Amino acid sequence: MHTIHGMIDSGNCYKPRLLMAKLGEPFGHVEVSSRDGGTRTPAYLAKNPNGMVPLLELEDGRVLAESNAILLYLAEGTRFLPTDRYARGLVYQWLFFEQYSHEPYIAVRKALLTFPERARDATPDRLALTLERGNKALAVMERHLAGGNAFFAGGAYSVADIALFAYTHMAGQGGFDLGAYPAVGAWLKRVEADPGHVPIEWLP
Amino acid sequence: MHTIHGMIDSGNCYKPRLLMAKLGEPFGHVEVSSRDGGTRTPAYLAKNPNGMVPLLELEDGRVLAESNAILLYLAEGTRFLPTDRYARGLVYQWLFFEQYSHEPYIAVRKALLTFPERARDATPDRLALTLERGNKALAVMERHLAGGNAFFAGGAYSVADIALFAYTHMAGQGGFDLGAYPAVGAWLKRVEADPGHVPIEWLP
Repeated sequence: MHTIHGMIDSGNCYKPRLLMAKLGEPFGHVEVSSRDGGTRTPAYLAKNPNGMVPLLELEDGRVLAESNAILLYLAEGTRFLPTDRYARGLVYQWLFFEQYSHEPYIAVRKALLTFPERARDATPDRLALTLERGNKALAVMERHLAGGNAFFAGGAYSVADIALFAYTHMAGQGGFDLGAYPAVGAWLKRVEADPGHVPIEWLP
Repeated sequence: MHTIHGMIDSGNCYKPRLLMAKLGEPFGHVEVSSRDGGTRTPAYLAKNPNGMVPLLELEDGRVLAESNAILLYLAEGTRFLPTDRYARGLVYQWLFFEQYSHEPYIAVRKALLTFPERARDATPDRLALTLERGNKALAVMERHLAGGNAFFAGGAYSVADIALFAYTHMAGQGGFDLGAYPAVGAWLKRVEADPGHVPIEWLP
């Protein structure tokens, strides 16, 4: 059985839990938090020298870091990762978009506004930049979805949707107005309606 | 024949060119620069709504964005992407590490210090943060390589090495002292010695 080391209220850590739930695979959860130093202990750094969560630990002790890499690893051979080469390329594209152009603004702005220990980083400049860049990411998503695409890659629900759902569905907590993005709102409902969906703090 | 839209002196755009060179595949190059508005024209935004380079355009007009997604797409079925599931997972892991924990500090610090149009963003706080985080990324790489790994994933040269090479080999221009990372230095030499290596501004 796999073990997922992660924070129960982190969007990045929600991603592999949501996929495992949809796959119907049992897994262990070990709570490791970046907010209480849990990701910076020698024991944790021995597992993940980059000191981040989530971390997937296989039954034989091998580990894999980076939420979207874990999604791709777990989804291999399932309906959540297309076999068509170009459709797969689009999954990769949206996963990198999520980590480079979306999470650093939408997830980070939520953290700045809601985590007490991040309050001193919440400067007016930082809040303005994350708002502008986060809205840019949401506009890119809106344009894709409003253009007749029900999901992000290959015409079907994939790990690209899981990755983008994680922080988009909480964007309101970062001060983003999802009402301005109706196609994104409709897509969030489609993701929630896909069989086996579970909410962020769900555990098996 | 594929076309790569990109900047000749960008590390992200170097990645697919280096892989295509090593694969011995011809391709067209269209210079599109973020520094002169080239990524923000209506024609370019119609191809890539996120307004970034590189962009891969297939012969039939379909496009794929995100440098590391392009690497994975092009490397499918070649020696640059392992077929073993866990080794492939490690390739994914290092590609996401590169885009989340490495490029935003090492590449961005180089841009802040060397691009005149970025000079106003080069505040003392920004330079200090990118220096600290960039050195953290280099230390994670050093630990991996000093631990007996010749390359980043699966024991052989892969697209993970191409992605990490792109900005690491220019880190000195961002004010990073590569002399402090001897295993990284030795790995840079191994990457350069791999058959078919070409420098950043090479074109076919």
